[in-house]
Amino acid sequence: MIAGHKFGACLPTFGNCADRYCLGGYGGGGATIEEMLDLAATVDGLDGLELVGNWHVNDDNIYDVAKMFRERDLEICMLTPDLWTQAKWGRGSLAAPDAETRAAAVREIKKVIDWAAELDCRYVDVWPGQDGYDYCFQGNFACAWDWMVDGLAECAEHNRKVRPLVEYKPKEPRTHCYVGHVGELLLMLKDLDGIGGLLDWGHALEAGENIAESSALLSRFGKLDYLHLNDNWRQWDDDMMVGSVHLVEYLEWFYWLRKLDYRGWLTLDIFPYREDGVRAAVESRNWIEALFNAVNRVGMDAFARAIEAADACEGSRLVREAMGL
Amino acid sequence: MIAGHKFGACLPTFGNCADRYCLGGYGGGGATIEEMLDLAATVDGLDGLELVGNWHVNDDNIYDVAKMFRERDLEICMLTPDLWTQAKWGRGSLAAPDAETRAAAVREIKKVIDWAAELDCRYVDVWPGQDGYDYCFQGNFACAWDWMVDGLAECAEHNRKVRPLVEYKPKEPRTHCYVGHVGELLLMLKDLDGIGGLLDWGHALEAGENIAESSALLSRFGKLDYLHLNDNWRQWDDDMMVGSVHLVEYLEWFYWLRKLDYRGWLTLDIFPYREDGVRAAVESRNWIEALFNAVNRVGMDAFARAIEAADACEGSRLVREAMGL
Amino acid sequence: MIAGHKFGACLPTFGNCADRYCLGGYGGGGATIEEMLDLAATVDGLDGLELVGNWHVNDDNIYDVAKMFRERDLEICMLTPDLWTQAKWGRGSLAAPDAETRAAAVREIKKVIDWAAELDCRYVDVWPGQDGYDYCFQGNFACAWDWMVDGLAECAEHNRKVRPLVEYKPKEPRTHCYVGHVGELLLMLKDLDGIGGLLDWGHALEAGENIAESSALLSRFGKLDYLHLNDNWRQWDDDMMVGSVHLVEYLEWFYWLRKLDYRGWLTLDIFPYREDGVRAAVESRNWIEALFNAVNRVGMDAFARAIEAADACEGSRLVREAMGL
Amino acid sequence: MIAGHKFGACLPTFGNCADRYCLGGYGGGGATIEEMLDLAATVDGLDGLELVGNWHVNDDNIYDVAKMFRERDLEICMLTPDLWTQAKWGRGSLAAPDAETRAAAVREIKKVIDWAAELDCRYVDVWPGQDGYDYCFQGNFACAWDWMVDGLAECAEHNRKVRPLVEYKPKEPRTHCYVGHVGELLLMLKDLDGIGGLLDWGHALEAGENIAESSALLSRFGKLDYLHLNDNWRQWDDDMMVGSVHLVEYLEWFYWLRKLDYRGWLTLDIFPYREDGVRAAVESRNWIEALFNAVNRVGMDAFARAIEAADACEGSRLVREAMGL
Repeated sequence: MIAGHKFGACLPTFGNCADRYCLGGYGGGGATIEEMLDLAATVDGLDGLELVGNWHVNDDNIYDVAKMFRERDLEICMLTPDLWTQAKWGRGSLAAPDAETRAAAVREIKKVIDWAAELDCRYVDVWPGQDGYDYCFQGNFACAWDWMVDGLAECAEHNRKVRPLVEYKPKEPRTHCYVGHVGELLLMLKDLDGIGGLLDWGHALEAGENIAESSALLSRFGKLDYLHLNDNWRQWDDDMMVGSVHLVEYLEWFYWLRKLDYRGWLTLDIFPYREDGVRAAVESRNWIEALFNAVNRVGMDAFARAIEAADACEGSRLVREAMGL
Repeated sequence: MIAGHKFGACLPTFGNCADRYCLGGYGGGGATIEEMLDLAATVDGLDGLELVGNWHVNDDNIYDVAKMFRERDLEICMLTPDLWTQAKWGRGSLAAPDAETRAAAVREIKKVIDWAAELDCRYVDVWPGQDGYDYCFQGNFACAWDWMVDGLAECAEHNRKVRPLVEYKPKEPRTHCYVGHVGELLLMLKDLDGIGGLLDWGHALEAGENIAESSALLSRFGKLDYLHLNDNWRQWDDDMMVGSVHLVEYLEWFYWLRKLDYRGWLTLDIFPYREDGVRAAVESRNWIEALFNAVNRVGMDAFARAIEAADACEGSRLVREAMGL
Repeated sequence: MIAGHKFGACLPTFGNCADRYCLGGYGGGGATIEEMLDLAATVDGLDGLELVGNWHVNDDNIYDVAKMFRERDLEICMLTPDLWTQAKWGRGSLAAPDAETRAAAVREIKKVIDWAAELDCRYVDVWPGQDGYDYCFQGNFACAWDWMVDGLAECAEHNRKVRPLVEYKPKEPRTHCYVGHVGELLLMLKDLDGIGGLLDWGHALEAGENIAESSALLSRFGKLDYLHLNDNWRQWDDDMMVGSVHLVEYLEWFYWLRKLDYRGWLTLDIFPYREDGVRAAVESRNWIEALFNAVNRVGMDAFARAIEAADACEGSRLVREAMGL
Repeated sequence: MIAGHKFGACLPTFGNCADRYCLGGYGGGGATIEEMLDLAATVDGLDGLELVGNWHVNDDNIYDVAKMFRERDLEICMLTPDLWTQAKWGRGSLAAPDAETRAAAVREIKKVIDWAAELDCRYVDVWPGQDGYDYCFQGNFACAWDWMVDGLAECAEHNRKVRPLVEYKPKEPRTHCYVGHVGELLLMLKDLDGIGGLLDWGHALEAGENIAESSALLSRFGKLDYLHLNDNWRQWDDDMMVGSVHLVEYLEWFYWLRKLDYRGWLTLDIFPYREDGVRAAVESRNWIEALFNAVNRVGMDAFARAIEAADACEGSRLVREAMGL
């Protein structure tokens, strides 16, 4: 637990992270799931981990992996259907140009929902990262939106024990992803009661959003279900440690998470390419705790008054007070 | 008329454009409304002009100005309430922190709707440019959305002869504007039947959007009412001439406007700081015509097939064919 | 004085700031130079102010203004030649397409150097903001670089009591300015001994630079002469209060300013459009002091060791320790 | 040959391109070097290919690979030392924190220069992509610049038959690369006569540069040696087909390449993740030819006159004329 929240991490935190140049990975981390879980278990306060289909689990080993979690007293906080790690999804999943791939994407999601239900995992992360386009005259704007809505609607009905969440991101792996901004996500999900939203800090940043504003909007429409924490330089999903760049935004965000009464998971989605994963997770956890404490140092009321007055100078002063500076 | 559309321009096209450094303007253009209209009247094919409250018209002169338009056989294609040219709106209009300013904004919009109705101007452009925040801990995310929705709902009821449109923009004059992306706009307007959307090319670009995709989304929800044309370098609302930077995106957009059966105005919103306004308008018009012709050269069906196949190489070939290259 | 440095401000801090929409200004601040100076004099620790030709001073009043400074015990820390507030510079100054304007720019700079020498002001800020281009096929890349070098060389010889500094900025008021990045600035100035560099935090940020790295590079080539402090959101020169967005970068910067043994002015270049200028200056000063203290809390050696090891986790821990979190 | 230039491609054009999510690649392309060369040989007009150490060649197979080139009548237009595909370079090469890695980088470059000399390949591409930092307080700005200059100076002396070129890029694989802008590159290389510059279109775009301006600057200092062609969306090195986004910039660039009398290679550096590599190369070649023809349609003189007058409207008209619109 951390600041009253369950604390999770995506598995690459403890693995060997690769990019398109260094495809074998920068080294470090665990080579097997079991090794990654062993590393994760050394992080104080960590309650659970996310698993990605095909990367970490598959039809054959999912129950073995679940057993590894139980043995280490870790929860599976999220199962992510594989809609993006194989060439077959390269041109799209829920909004692929061909109907058969779209149907396969729905089947994949439903299968993972079934796994999740059996494993007492409450969420499934539908990230349609391959659904989009790279070039002009490639996106099918007449159909893509409806394909996605139809596919999601089908999944929403599947199993009420598990809540599918949709994660938005403006780009990568496509140069343009269809569900790229918080407004689009909410427009798409507004009338799909059974489906929630997943907000990834870095995705919101590269979408040009202020994450506190996006969170408030998601909350207003009942879709602030789950959070991915990391940091980046605003241009790309760098998946850096929490607290590395955006301290003021993080502070404002934690104020608003309290204000909005968010009670869900705080889950790291970082790629410590060149860092030790355990240290990177610990650093991130320490920043999260420190910044929640910083909110408390000033108190909710003082911040609320500055916001009501829209008083930038007072807001600035409170940030400095919160930081202990 | 241009490519089957009425062709309009914002008045600064023919005025003396200023920025924050050169507050007296870079020179050229008309000094009075009448001079600006005289310049506008020299642009072949121009059907109408937009007027901005307080900049161009006010309670005292609006009917005189209307007469100037009639005498030159020009339409007033848009009346824009002044919600952003005076210090009193500096901290917001529809979402200002104080209730009295919010009420004043609604009154201002209604007054301009009344003017528009009398002057046979069909649209009023509600651009909440001052509604937003500059600093962290300044935006009131708990209230701002509802303030805007409430204010807009009030205006929607006012006079059914005139359709208020909301124009979105991610930043400037605030560093963060509340209605910044197409998804947010549609989420806000979805259930407000009496209010439409205004898409400004440059605003969409600086929001990181693909304008064809944004247009299709607006159309799907019945909000593709009116368009502002210009160009920029993707980081800021540079308000440059049409065709100066984004030829491929413009071509794709014009394909989609045809596909979506858009029949409204094509209105220039350019700031020719250092250019002759008439030449800048003529250049822009020539590019618009040339690019609509370019779509026709290839034909709707050929583009549609490339899009259905999501075939980037074929799309690229068609763009080259369209360009006559 | 602040953290051992002389502390200055640009005059708009205490004036009525305008933008291209609200040309009359957002209100507040002083209406006259004298009123602005009176406001400035209330800021504890402020040692001097910058003046901009044509905006604040001119041939007729410069000595009167100097007297106002003396009476308030304030220094003129910088005189900035007007190369950008009048339409006549709209197409360029040192690199204008016509030779006469280029010559006029050199005369203007020399005149201001003479004023500076008489007024015991050590620096003149040559900001070639209008030197650039807005459109493709507009920049004269065959000539512009040499025009600038030649013009600057002429000014370098003028009066050795005053050091002309060149300030770089990637865009605004042009969409592309010729001297846009620190590398270009140094390439241009490397062999011009008599001319130094001026680093504006916000300009470097919008150029995509890390300011600490840029400062180290300027220092290596003997051109880290003067600093402008503010903050922004990385896309535009928002000229916000210090400490509003980039705390970690500011901390890193202050570490490097100590390491590089910078001893010059720390001067605010902020535009508090909607804030009280005095409060904004005080907030900025308080952040500067707090962040220099934060560097001291950890100590130069601990940071140096983390940097030598390129250890991102240790760097992160030290930032948290510095912040008192 | 293409428009009077030798036409080359990087080998991934004809391979199976991967990213950090789909590490096995999106499929298509050749699986072996020989298969990739066979595909390349089907592209009309292609004169040569680049090879990357460790990805494509190594100590054991380099002469076999050279034979494969001869058999297909293809040149090796560039040999790129591996300074970025293995974990051992993850923290840097020429500017790595540890001296042994820096020395190993110099040895690697020299070895590849020797290969190049033997294989009659004139250029070696030193791309210090891993030299930089990801986090604040990680970059060693006191030493990195000199480490790089020293390492490059050593390579410059090695073999005068081969010219080492330095390729700049602002980010990826590090969030900040030390040699990120054209100005920095030239500042670094200005006094290193034996070393040239490599301009990659996409890198310059993501650095916020106008490529024509960067090319003119490189040419002025005698460092416009070699060009990489591709396209992207300005935020990231998307490595898309030529002509997909920036037609006006490409046109302006080709005008300037003629003006600057560039006579070197035009080499594709594209990653056709989801496209057929041969078609993507052919499309790119067709765009290059079409846009050089477009320059000719208008003629050098007409463009030169518009540029001398800095006349944006005339420039716009000429672009339309060049495009055949």
